[in-house]
Amino acid sequence: MLSQTELITLSKNDKVDHFLLIRRMDLRTTRSGSDFLSTELSDKTASISANIWEGFAELSARGKVGDLVKVSGTVEEYQGSLQIRVSSIRLARESDGVSPQDFLPVSRRNLDDMKNEFSQRTKSISNKHLKKLLAQVFNDKRFGQFCLAPAGKSWHHAYIHGLLEHTLEIIKLCELMCEFHSELNKDLLISGAMLHDIGKIEELSYDSAFEYTEKGKLVGHIVIASSMVQDEIKNIPDFPAELENNLIHLILSHQGKLEHASPVIPKTAEAIALYQADELSAKVNAYKNAVESELKADSNWTRFIPLADTDLHKFNFTNSSNEESKKSLFD
Amino acid sequence: MLSQTELITLSKNDKVDHFLLIRRMDLRTTRSGSDFLSTELSDKTASISANIWEGFAELSARGKVGDLVKVSGTVEEYQGSLQIRVSSIRLARESDGVSPQDFLPVSRRNLDDMKNEFSQRTKSISNKHLKKLLAQVFNDKRFGQFCLAPAGKSWHHAYIHGLLEHTLEIIKLCELMCEFHSELNKDLLISGAMLHDIGKIEELSYDSAFEYTEKGKLVGHIVIASSMVQDEIKNIPDFPAELENNLIHLILSHQGKLEHASPVIPKTAEAIALYQADELSAKVNAYKNAVESELKADSNWTRFIPLADTDLHKFNFTNSSNEESKKSLFD
Amino acid sequence: MLSQTELITLSKNDKVDHFLLIRRMDLRTTRSGSDFLSTELSDKTASISANIWEGFAELSARGKVGDLVKVSGTVEEYQGSLQIRVSSIRLARESDGVSPQDFLPVSRRNLDDMKNEFSQRTKSISNKHLKKLLAQVFNDKRFGQFCLAPAGKSWHHAYIHGLLEHTLEIIKLCELMCEFHSELNKDLLISGAMLHDIGKIEELSYDSAFEYTEKGKLVGHIVIASSMVQDEIKNIPDFPAELENNLIHLILSHQGKLEHASPVIPKTAEAIALYQADELSAKVNAYKNAVESELKADSNWTRFIPLADTDLHKFNFTNSSNEESKKSLFD
Amino acid sequence: MLSQTELITLSKNDKVDHFLLIRRMDLRTTRSGSDFLSTELSDKTASISANIWEGFAELSARGKVGDLVKVSGTVEEYQGSLQIRVSSIRLARESDGVSPQDFLPVSRRNLDDMKNEFSQRTKSISNKHLKKLLAQVFNDKRFGQFCLAPAGKSWHHAYIHGLLEHTLEIIKLCELMCEFHSELNKDLLISGAMLHDIGKIEELSYDSAFEYTEKGKLVGHIVIASSMVQDEIKNIPDFPAELENNLIHLILSHQGKLEHASPVIPKTAEAIALYQADELSAKVNAYKNAVESELKADSNWTRFIPLADTDLHKFNFTNSSNEESKKSLFD
Amino acid sequence: MLSQTELITLSKNDKVDHFLLIRRMDLRTTRSGSDFLSTELSDKTASISANIWEGFAELSARGKVGDLVKVSGTVEEYQGSLQIRVSSIRLARESDGVSPQDFLPVSRRNLDDMKNEFSQRTKSISNKHLKKLLAQVFNDKRFGQFCLAPAGKSWHHAYIHGLLEHTLEIIKLCELMCEFHSELNKDLLISGAMLHDIGKIEELSYDSAFEYTEKGKLVGHIVIASSMVQDEIKNIPDFPAELENNLIHLILSHQGKLEHASPVIPKTAEAIALYQADELSAKVNAYKNAVESELKADSNWTRFIPLADTDLHKFNFTNSSNEESKKSLFD
Amino acid sequence: MLSQTELITLSKNDKVDHFLLIRRMDLRTTRSGSDFLSTELSDKTASISANIWEGFAELSARGKVGDLVKVSGTVEEYQGSLQIRVSSIRLARESDGVSPQDFLPVSRRNLDDMKNEFSQRTKSISNKHLKKLLAQVFNDKRFGQFCLAPAGKSWHHAYIHGLLEHTLEIIKLCELMCEFHSELNKDLLISGAMLHDIGKIEELSYDSAFEYTEKGKLVGHIVIASSMVQDEIKNIPDFPAELENNLIHLILSHQGKLEHASPVIPKTAEAIALYQADELSAKVNAYKNAVESELKADSNWTRFIPLADTDLHKFNFTNSSNEESKKSLFD
Repeated sequence: MLSQTELITLSKNDKVDHFLLIRRMDLRTTRSGSDFLSTELSDKTASISANIWEGFAELSARGKVGDLVKVSGTVEEYQGSLQIRVSSIRLARESDGVSPQDFLPVSRRNLDDMKNEFSQRTKSISNKHLKKLLAQVFNDKRFGQFCLAPAGKSWHHAYIHGLLEHTLEIIKLCELMCEFHSELNKDLLISGAMLHDIGKIEELSYDSAFEYTEKGKLVGHIVIASSMVQDEIKNIPDFPAELENNLIHLILSHQGKLEHASPVIPKTAEAIALYQADELSAKVNAYKNAVESELKADSNWTRFIPLADTDLHKFNFTNSSNEESKKSLFD
Repeated sequence: MLSQTELITLSKNDKVDHFLLIRRMDLRTTRSGSDFLSTELSDKTASISANIWEGFAELSARGKVGDLVKVSGTVEEYQGSLQIRVSSIRLARESDGVSPQDFLPVSRRNLDDMKNEFSQRTKSISNKHLKKLLAQVFNDKRFGQFCLAPAGKSWHHAYIHGLLEHTLEIIKLCELMCEFHSELNKDLLISGAMLHDIGKIEELSYDSAFEYTEKGKLVGHIVIASSMVQDEIKNIPDFPAELENNLIHLILSHQGKLEHASPVIPKTAEAIALYQADELSAKVNAYKNAVESELKADSNWTRFIPLADTDLHKFNFTNSSNEESKKSLFD
Repeated sequence: MLSQTELITLSKNDKVDHFLLIRRMDLRTTRSGSDFLSTELSDKTASISANIWEGFAELSARGKVGDLVKVSGTVEEYQGSLQIRVSSIRLARESDGVSPQDFLPVSRRNLDDMKNEFSQRTKSISNKHLKKLLAQVFNDKRFGQFCLAPAGKSWHHAYIHGLLEHTLEIIKLCELMCEFHSELNKDLLISGAMLHDIGKIEELSYDSAFEYTEKGKLVGHIVIASSMVQDEIKNIPDFPAELENNLIHLILSHQGKLEHASPVIPKTAEAIALYQADELSAKVNAYKNAVESELKADSNWTRFIPLADTDLHKFNFTNSSNEESKKSLFD
Repeated sequence: MLSQTELITLSKNDKVDHFLLIRRMDLRTTRSGSDFLSTELSDKTASISANIWEGFAELSARGKVGDLVKVSGTVEEYQGSLQIRVSSIRLARESDGVSPQDFLPVSRRNLDDMKNEFSQRTKSISNKHLKKLLAQVFNDKRFGQFCLAPAGKSWHHAYIHGLLEHTLEIIKLCELMCEFHSELNKDLLISGAMLHDIGKIEELSYDSAFEYTEKGKLVGHIVIASSMVQDEIKNIPDFPAELENNLIHLILSHQGKLEHASPVIPKTAEAIALYQADELSAKVNAYKNAVESELKADSNWTRFIPLADTDLHKFNFTNSSNEESKKSLFD
Repeated sequence: MLSQTELITLSKNDKVDHFLLIRRMDLRTTRSGSDFLSTELSDKTASISANIWEGFAELSARGKVGDLVKVSGTVEEYQGSLQIRVSSIRLARESDGVSPQDFLPVSRRNLDDMKNEFSQRTKSISNKHLKKLLAQVFNDKRFGQFCLAPAGKSWHHAYIHGLLEHTLEIIKLCELMCEFHSELNKDLLISGAMLHDIGKIEELSYDSAFEYTEKGKLVGHIVIASSMVQDEIKNIPDFPAELENNLIHLILSHQGKLEHASPVIPKTAEAIALYQADELSAKVNAYKNAVESELKADSNWTRFIPLADTDLHKFNFTNSSNEESKKSLFD
Repeated sequence: MLSQTELITLSKNDKVDHFLLIRRMDLRTTRSGSDFLSTELSDKTASISANIWEGFAELSARGKVGDLVKVSGTVEEYQGSLQIRVSSIRLARESDGVSPQDFLPVSRRNLDDMKNEFSQRTKSISNKHLKKLLAQVFNDKRFGQFCLAPAGKSWHHAYIHGLLEHTLEIIKLCELMCEFHSELNKDLLISGAMLHDIGKIEELSYDSAFEYTEKGKLVGHIVIASSMVQDEIKNIPDFPAELENNLIHLILSHQGKLEHASPVIPKTAEAIALYQADELSAKVNAYKNAVESELKADSNWTRFIPLADTDLHKFNFTNSSNEESKKSLFD
């Protein structure tokens, strides 16, 4: 692991001598005809822009989005934002011992805690067919991918381990719903929660930048998941057809509406519970992230967020950690 | 309280000597010219139809939906459904000591438990302005109505104490979301959850049948609630304007979309949490109820449910209480 | 095969001594208290109603929609429609040698002609992977079901052999599009056309009346088809992943829009061709059938057809077969 | 009041020595690294852009949108538009005796005429409850704000006194509708017309630039208005509940559709009249303004106007003032 | 003209000896096998139902909707509504001297007043091309139809002379808009208002009942009107193309939205004025009529009105004519 | 005709000495204050950008989009795209003998072949009224325009002769539908196919760049076509009204939905056939063109295509012409 300081902690005039991930890279030309390389570079804590005015020939020819670079320079301020004034830059080498995955945004939750919570739930499933199915689907290889993957490209839980974190939130919300309604089939619902987004491990690539794969775009994570689960069911003798249909129904209907790309809408109480729990987990995560990362300067409002169809308002987020400021406001 | 047997327990040929609530009453005429009174009668457990062929003059002239009647007769089967063959019927009298409220559907949860859970939450609010506001809004009179009212006319939590039960579910879901996200302002969110549907105590009448009031139809529970809360805030010196705007925003935006009659859409992380928790609580309750009460004979499917835009499927609800049947199916 | 006269040819006062299929059956009671059995009966040419006033005990107890009955009686007219005045009725027996399938509506096209046309197309596929895949999917058992099934419950090609007829129309339309555009990948497009609706053989039941199966309602023909095809692909070594993704994409996107239950929308030229050819084949068939079967008396207009969102107009359909009437009109 | 020439009258090469309002201000940098300040400046008649290349340190640090500046320079043409070549610029001072409000767009109608027309209508209300209510709502302070405020940020009547002008148009349209339909409750309808947009005095700020306030974004003018009116009704003894509900209904439903942010849709003949009169007044004003201000050079068409969902066409607007040109065209 | 009393004035037990129009006529059969003729009969003031139990052979065979009958009998009450107990009924004869048009609902406004108002407006058009065009379109024959026709089948101004009444309302609203905005081309706008619905004289038949014609259903009043106007323009030498395009645009866009069957949306200030004035006139008329005719017994609410998407509320309509009741309510 | 090399064949460093068409032309200024002319220039095979830094005074003052220029210079590469480094440029002159039409994109099909195919179809119409009508509508002048015009501005068949090519495709698809359904009125349907888009010859201008005309924007091609056809019908004695209504219905409804600007929706089997055949022809052409012209570098995906609501995927288009590459992939 790297020992370099995190980007988020840097201020104006700080020295930079960092490995960073290329998030964007364009060759541009000034009106006066000079070429330069415009880039956006990141570690797991933040993203910063850097224009490179010379010595970028090799980088421009051989580098691409998702690659790592070694950058030296100074932090400077430009139009209210920080950027790097680059003195030298080069592509990372084998011998540098760095990997793009160390530079991706990562869940704030502890990975082992999350894995334990998840395993605990798989053990609590009492239906033997479902228990066997979960063991097969979450074999070592798939469980590794499942624990690594983000839950999305950019909207919600869009960070390493995000899929696991998101799935755990839904499981807990569904458990609470089962407390309210003993009529719900808990084994079915929790199994559905665990499996509903498993297709995202193939829909997205997350070795470096998060992107949709070709299969992700042509097939989509819903059908990828249902195929994956049906394949495993074929290897379980006597898996009841009715149980299979209801489980596949949970996966297919979990986006709740046809226009959200579910090929069937929820037709059971378990299916509506899964859909609405998914919404609750996803939307609150997405809004929180937007409010944290998109605030306009000198404002409690973000820029317009298309997926929320509005600009968002930040209210009093510091009141728990900063008792004094909270007191002065409302107490 | 009444000692009569519950409607839901009656079978063909059982004697009826019951007080029942009028849910529907129409004067009809046969093709051959005979008048009769077609009615639907209920207690809190079920609803049954009865045609009255004679002696209904006074009932027809003075009775109306929501009144109680004393009915004698026998249960018979007609086209696959049970109905009452009426031998005599009369309007209930003062001296009968019965009240329409005893005949309305009621939450299955224990009322005192729910009141305690609610009070516990109001005590846990630490912001002094919100604490004072909640005490004022939930004064004895309003708290009484709040604990009595249904959360809706027919779709979800449409029974006595339903508003309290629904509100508690949302509070617990929001508490869980605050565990996931310490950035959420918990005092604001829980207060909003408590107040968001308070307007329903005036939007609906629930003395006998559940109906929209004139104010309910012309103004609606969202603006009734925001007015009620703003009135009480006026009596609290120094209630911060920013806090008021954010709290009112939670109430106004809690239906999530303009086309669902919210005059503003959620613009804070707390507002989206409240909206989505409301959806989760409401939809699962509604689907569960529909699956229980609308199943077609010899079928695992209900009739078409317009608000779900589909017919609904009942899967394996008995597996927890009936271990044997479950075993034979999937184990 | 039966030698009885077709329902469509019967007139008032004709004798009935027919085997017929039960399409609807309700036990009803007159206002004066008499029970009777209200039914709708059909052969493959037409449907007629019949009320049975006595001797229906066994039929009522043991018969159900989709069963066959032997009916004797007379055709009479009632409020402008024909119905059967039943003198006797009984359930068909094993020894009668009749089968419900002989009473279902059937495509007007010759089955062997259609099978030949279809086989000819499978032979014309030159890509070896697709050729092998088609052979496996259309094995004897599945091809049998494919040639029997209707393409829908009631809207278009809703008759025995309808799925085959519909698929052939789409194939021919796609071949024409390939003539217009040599850039289209013909093997891929024609294979997609052949496979796109194969899931309907499990989505619908068509032994007697056409109904959705439980799997049909919970999973749907689109995902049934994609699973079926992916299963067979697993048995073909070296089937190219890119080809699989593009073929599955054709199946998943063939309803063209998310709100029409496709989980992805068309993203290739072949996919848009398949979707639009499907629409053309389906809509013209549906409108033609509606115009033929739903015309109101003394009118060139049908009743309101919800799926067309309008009433439909019949114009001059007889002009090719009836030269004289055509001449008097326009020549 | 200022004696400087109006912006709208300036041409290329004219000298500028003006106080102007800052509508937009961004610090930018050329590719070659020079900073400059890009601004949009306006008086009440027009808006013009100006880039400032030096001496903008104080302005950039202390000025903001809505402030006034003193600018010297020359008008020049750039890519078909006029802009100011700035020789010097400074923030306005106390001693300059200028106020931002003198630089905002203003209604073309005479303010006193409009006030008189409005007062005349309040006098004509005969219902004593409504008369008292109007007197209280339109107290001196609120009436001052009401006469100053624009009716919107940019779409229609988006100028000082615009709210009063718009309200008067609606009143007159409603009076005409009352002539057509004596059944309409004129007192109720005209009172509703007067009050429906009163919430805009708090939804918008209009001291300098027109912006939404925090309350405007979180609560919105519809609920602000209903709260304001309900507060005043509380101070009127015996105000009939039915009248209150119907009046509040007019305010809440005046945007006509849920998706336009009305929490209830029009349910009375008066409510539909108010909604449609509002639409007529607003849309014609908006389209007229767009056609006047957004015409593309050498064209009778404007740019694409998102709120109209089309580009707009200007036809023959000069024919009343310019008889000759009109004659040559059509006479 | 008839001297018989108006239907609206009849009460229980009154004698009937009236000519009435057949609005609906069905042959029905009781469960016990008796045939009877169920009808709805009307004069211009009201509609009433009547069942005929004998002597209806000729009527049933030769009569149809839109025909007149002579009915004798008595008014009786049945399930809260009045109906006619028929003693004899026959089709009207040539010699009776009655015409179906005397039995259709008619505008309450005086026809000559309306004609004068309309003519006055055509005289005020100063543009010579438009003046000539209006004279040609409103030739004697067409003006006769225009003054007779309803503006719709059932929703708004759905009565004889309704098209003229509706057009006059729009003209007056547009004149008011021209007072607000001198920039509007008044000649163009008023001419457009006069012509916009002229196609309805061919879209509807209104000799007896109001029905869509075949041309009305296949072509529609918008294109009928544009064709009619373009035909007449061809006969006017030198009619300016730009004026024609703008006038046709007013006709085509007057329903404001593509989904309301306008093939283009409003693109000029005049077009938006015409559309919104049309909406205001139509909606208020429709809501008023619905509130008057659809009120449920003992209620201030109508049944659900699909075109309004709500039930409607009647508020205080009698307060102008009935000072006392008004006083007791609000004064 | 020109002998210059086609743009599509040029590579980096090639000399340019070409006549080209101006597709876009903007005067721009660098940050440092230099003016330059930014243009897009095209021949019929491709489009290329060129910035002109001096000597553009006359061009800028007198040239406009749709004009031709003579350009000398060199091809260079800039940010991955080719552009022209201009050494000299001037407007084309009369004496150059070049015409803008030679620089527009053109159908790849042979014009005479298409004309022959079209004529053959007009001859095959047997109904004498329709035959006469087609002869009149497609008189020499209109047939010339019809054969020249594109079928759209940019989406589908947006090239010279595109309207004829598109119409022929629809005719052939409709002929195939008539093979499937002998009930369709072939003469009516084929005539409707021929006439449905004839209005585009006036809706668009296509002398140089393709643009909407003023009439096109205010009236639209659907009503232009229906007027054109109705005018010609007036000159045919005894043209049956029913035939006219059905033919006009085909034209008016051919865009299938009100929101696609058809003033009536399809109400006959012929109308739905024409609409769906139009969709099939248009969409496949549009997607194919997008996939060919919008591919992103190093990708099988295009940029996001708004009219398809997705990015598009190119699959294996070369496999028919390039057997080897195909073999290596799938065989």
